[in-house]
Amino acid sequence: MKENLTVEEIVRGIQERDRRMLARAISYTEDEHPIAEQIARRIYRKVGKAYRVGITGPPGAGKSTLTSGIARELRRQGKTVGIVAVDPTSPFSGGAVLGDRIRMSELTTDPGVFIRSMATRGSLGGLAKTAQEVADLMDAAGMDFVIFETVGVGQGELDVARATDTTIVVLVPESGDSIQAMKAGLMEIADIFVINKADREGATKMKIELEMMLKLRSTHTKLAWIPPILETIANRGVGVEELVNSVGKHRAFLLEQGELERKRSLRLQEKVRQLIQNELDKNFWTKKRQAVFNDKIKQVLEHQLSPYQLVEELFHLDGKVIS
Amino acid sequence: MKENLTVEEIVRGIQERDRRMLARAISYTEDEHPIAEQIARRIYRKVGKAYRVGITGPPGAGKSTLTSGIARELRRQGKTVGIVAVDPTSPFSGGAVLGDRIRMSELTTDPGVFIRSMATRGSLGGLAKTAQEVADLMDAAGMDFVIFETVGVGQGELDVARATDTTIVVLVPESGDSIQAMKAGLMEIADIFVINKADREGATKMKIELEMMLKLRSTHTKLAWIPPILETIANRGVGVEELVNSVGKHRAFLLEQGELERKRSLRLQEKVRQLIQNELDKNFWTKKRQAVFNDKIKQVLEHQLSPYQLVEELFHLDGKVIS
Repeated sequence: MKENLTVEEIVRGIQERDRRMLARAISYTEDEHPIAEQIARRIYRKVGKAYRVGITGPPGAGKSTLTSGIARELRRQGKTVGIVAVDPTSPFSGGAVLGDRIRMSELTTDPGVFIRSMATRGSLGGLAKTAQEVADLMDAAGMDFVIFETVGVGQGELDVARATDTTIVVLVPESGDSIQAMKAGLMEIADIFVINKADREGATKMKIELEMMLKLRSTHTKLAWIPPILETIANRGVGVEELVNSVGKHRAFLLEQGELERKRSLRLQEKVRQLIQNELDKNFWTKKRQAVFNDKIKQVLEHQLSPYQLVEELFHLDGKVIS
Repeated sequence: MKENLTVEEIVRGIQERDRRMLARAISYTEDEHPIAEQIARRIYRKVGKAYRVGITGPPGAGKSTLTSGIARELRRQGKTVGIVAVDPTSPFSGGAVLGDRIRMSELTTDPGVFIRSMATRGSLGGLAKTAQEVADLMDAAGMDFVIFETVGVGQGELDVARATDTTIVVLVPESGDSIQAMKAGLMEIADIFVINKADREGATKMKIELEMMLKLRSTHTKLAWIPPILETIANRGVGVEELVNSVGKHRAFLLEQGELERKRSLRLQEKVRQLIQNELDKNFWTKKRQAVFNDKIKQVLEHQLSPYQLVEELFHLDGKVIS
C-alpha cells in the first residue's frame, strides 16, 4: 500500500499541506520508522507556529464534543486546526455513538481540519512523545492550532498536558468526583476550567466549589493567572465561543509574561533530553551486551546475581563507557 | 529529625521487620537519596516472596475501601500486608472522609500491616518505578502481600498494573463509563473484575455487558484465564472474602502456567533496563555537556540550531561515547 516516497517528497508535501503526505508522515512517526526522524529533522524550522491546546478530563465529560465545538469555532474565525486524540474512547478514534459521528463528519471533510487519533500502546511516556511529534508535523503543515484531547486524570495525562500552551480541564456537574479529580493534580494543570453539561443539576454548586479551591490556591501561590471557570453545553454549542475567547486571553497573557517562550523552551529541552536518551540506548545495546543480558537475566531471576551486578557487568563488557 | 543510621542498621532493621526502619528506607527511596540504592542492593536477596496485587479503577469506585477490606481479610487469614497507595485521592493519602478514616484506623494500628501513600510528583514512569522499589522494601520486610492502589484509567496506571501479579479492576454500576473504561485498556489488564456498590441499580446490566465483552474477547484470543466478575459492597464487607479467594485462584493459575515466573522475569528485565538508563544518564551529563546544553538550548529555541544538531554536538563533545 505504501509506495516508495522519498523523504524529500514527504517533506515538500507536508509544507504544501498535502493531507496524504501529512498522514503518511504521521504513520511513520507512530510506527517509529527511521524515516520519521529524517522528516522531523527537515521540517524542524517550520515547527513552532501552531498554538497547542490540551483538553483533558474524566471519560464521559464530553471532551470530544467540546473539541469539535472549538474546532468549528476556530474554523469560523478562519483558523486551521489539527486534532490529536490521545484517547481510545474518543469518537475521533472510532469509539463514537452515531450522534457524535454525525456532528463530527462536518469536520472530517473540512480541508482546514486534520484529525488523528492515537492508540495508547506502550508506555504513556512514549505516547506523550509521539503525540508531540505528530503535533510538530501538523504544525509544520501550517495548522494554526493543534488540539490534544486526552482522557482521564492520571499522571500520564499530565505529561501530555505539559506539552500544551493552554490546558482546558473539562468536568461535569454530576461527577461527584470533582474534588477528587482536583486532588489528582488537575488543579495544577488547568489554565481554564469548563463545566460541561452545565444545564444539569449541580453545575452552580460545582462552580462555587472550584472557585473556592482556586481562591485558596491563589492566596498561597500568588499566581498572576487565575483560571476562569466557564460553563458549556457542548452538544448544543453553548459557551463554546466564550471558551475559544478565553483560550485567546490565556495566550495573550502567556505572551505578555514571556511564559509562552518559557513553556516552549522547556518542551524543547525535554525533546533534546529524549533524543539523547534514545541515542544512548541505541549505542549501549550492542549485540554483545544484548546477548549477555539475555544469558544472565535468568541468574538474576534465580537470585544468583543481583540486578546491580548485571548492570555493572554490562557496563564493563564492551569497552568504553561515556566519559 | 533523621539521625545518622548506617545502611547496615537500616537493612538489618528491615529484615527484622522494624517499622521505623522500613519507613526510613521508603523515605530514602522516595527522595531518591543515594543510600536507597545501597539498601536496595543489600536487600535484593530477600525480595521476591510477596504476592503483588493491583487495584485500579476510576475515582470514587471505592478502591480504598476495597483495599482495606482485602487487607483485613488477609490479616484474618494470618497474612501480613503492605499497601502502596499510588493515588493522591486515596484516604490512605490523607484524602479521607471521616468514615473511611475510622474504617482504616484498625489497619493503621495493626503491626501486620504497613501502609504507605505516594505522591504523584514528576513523571508517572518515575512513580511506577518508585512504587516498585517501595514494594520491594515491604517484600524484604516480610510482607506476604503488597497491594498497589492506583487511580484512573490512564496509561500510567497500566504501567503500575504491569508491576503486579494480579490486577483487580473496580467499577461501579452508575458510572455509564464502564464501556468507555473498557476501551481505555482496562479490559487488557484486568485479571479480576469487581463491580463495587453492587446493591445499586445497574449492577446486573453492567455484569452482563462485561460478560459479553469478555466472551467476545476470549473467542478471539483463547486465553486460558477468563477474568471473573465479582460483586462487592466494600463498605459493608460484602463479597470481599470471595474476592480474596479469587486472587488466590488467579495466583494458583499463574503458578501452574509458569506465568508468575514470566511476569517476574519481565519486571526484572524492566528494572535492569531502568538501572542502565539511569547510569547512562549519569555518565553522559558531565559538567561540560551540561554547560554546553545550557548555553546552546537558546539557539535551538531561536531556530538557529536544530535539536538534532545540538544532540550530535553534545555527543562529540566529551570524548568517548559508548562503544
